[in-house]
Amino acid sequence: MPPLTLIAFDADDTLWQNETHFRLTQSRFEALLRDHAEPAHLHERLLAAERRNLGHYGYGVKGFMLSMIETAIEVTEGRIEARAIAEILSAGREMLTHPVELCPHAEATLRDLSRHHQVIVITKGDLLDQERKVAQSGLGELLHGVEIVSEKTAATYGAIFARYGHPPGRAMMVGNSVKSDVLPALSAGAWGVHVPHGLTWEMERADPPLDHPRYHALADLSALPALVERLSRSL
Amino acid sequence: MPPLTLIAFDADDTLWQNETHFRLTQSRFEALLRDHAEPAHLHERLLAAERRNLGHYGYGVKGFMLSMIETAIEVTEGRIEARAIAEILSAGREMLTHPVELCPHAEATLRDLSRHHQVIVITKGDLLDQERKVAQSGLGELLHGVEIVSEKTAATYGAIFARYGHPPGRAMMVGNSVKSDVLPALSAGAWGVHVPHGLTWEMERADPPLDHPRYHALADLSALPALVERLSRSL
Repeated sequence: MPPLTLIAFDADDTLWQNETHFRLTQSRFEALLRDHAEPAHLHERLLAAERRNLGHYGYGVKGFMLSMIETAIEVTEGRIEARAIAEILSAGREMLTHPVELCPHAEATLRDLSRHHQVIVITKGDLLDQERKVAQSGLGELLHGVEIVSEKTAATYGAIFARYGHPPGRAMMVGNSVKSDVLPALSAGAWGVHVPHGLTWEMERADPPLDHPRYHALADLSALPALVERLSRSL
Repeated sequence: MPPLTLIAFDADDTLWQNETHFRLTQSRFEALLRDHAEPAHLHERLLAAERRNLGHYGYGVKGFMLSMIETAIEVTEGRIEARAIAEILSAGREMLTHPVELCPHAEATLRDLSRHHQVIVITKGDLLDQERKVAQSGLGELLHGVEIVSEKTAATYGAIFARYGHPPGRAMMVGNSVKSDVLPALSAGAWGVHVPHGLTWEMERADPPLDHPRYHALADLSALPALVERLSRSL
């Protein structure tokens, strides 16, 4: 059987920092509403709004902004001032313009792998925002393609691998979310590599499939080229 | 030279109604703020906010919601009540769930053309919202692909036509926006067909390139299959 030919990467918190910007904004949000709600309660209400709105807004910063505004109105029972809502808008717009900070070893790993493999990005989030981050990351020239999707399911992965011309058994998905990057890629018949990130959004958490034969976990991206080479030799 | 092989359609206000939902929401918005601003002034301020935010938010309903909230705070100089902002959120969410209403002849035209051509959709807007509309439109089975893009430029069109395997001279783009659907497709070397819609957003207006040899205009989609056949015979 031929070796691995396609290596696909998640973007947020796999190639560049993301959740840290959400957390910072959430801290500003909590400070803004400290006279109305305890941080823990506010956090819970915001998460509930995000869950409720996910089917309408999808993933990304714009939906997060709208859910923060909705939560602010809810927890203050309509007493929040317009000035505070203007601050939420401004915090959200800053998220959409923050400089891109690469995760450790992202560039070297992509550069190494792109010499002998097709390397692509598969990410959720706002279309324009993710395109901006790809452009600012400087990684664009190392990528064969960027796929921005509304949800990461086994079907999503299968369709993308096929479109790039790879059977799932020759494809690998690498990311920080067991739930979105690893489990559905394994279900699609591909390899799934978990590279944990210190910060992971509640809605992306899941138990790792420790016994799965195509599952691997790495402490960071630096060990990935060696893993890919080892697996390619054994295939 | 071989005939036309790819027919690409814009979605909003070409295959299904869209601007009418924006206008209805804008009327609700104007009614909500009638004690603070004249409709015409409010309209101007909202359009200015949309223009200002386009580079951050991109196209689509979520960015429109955020721009309405920002405008409401601005024109009331921070005096708008949270209750009114909650109404803006609710109006926006309704836009994201409204039933899809096809434009005249959309289904019959796609069915006819899809028998001998690759038919795809190329659209801007929110990823999840556009996917929902494709699914609800019932047109999905007639489409070879759906491309949701952040901007429609000649480069965007060229890349998509190439990815589907068609030289630009064999591709045609059909839509209601001269600015986004016709002019950049012509620049990419493809054919551009304008099918005007009664309602078109200010930011999508441009003069039609009446003298361009690959430009055509049709009153509605019903005449498209005959045009495609006629052009194919002459190529």
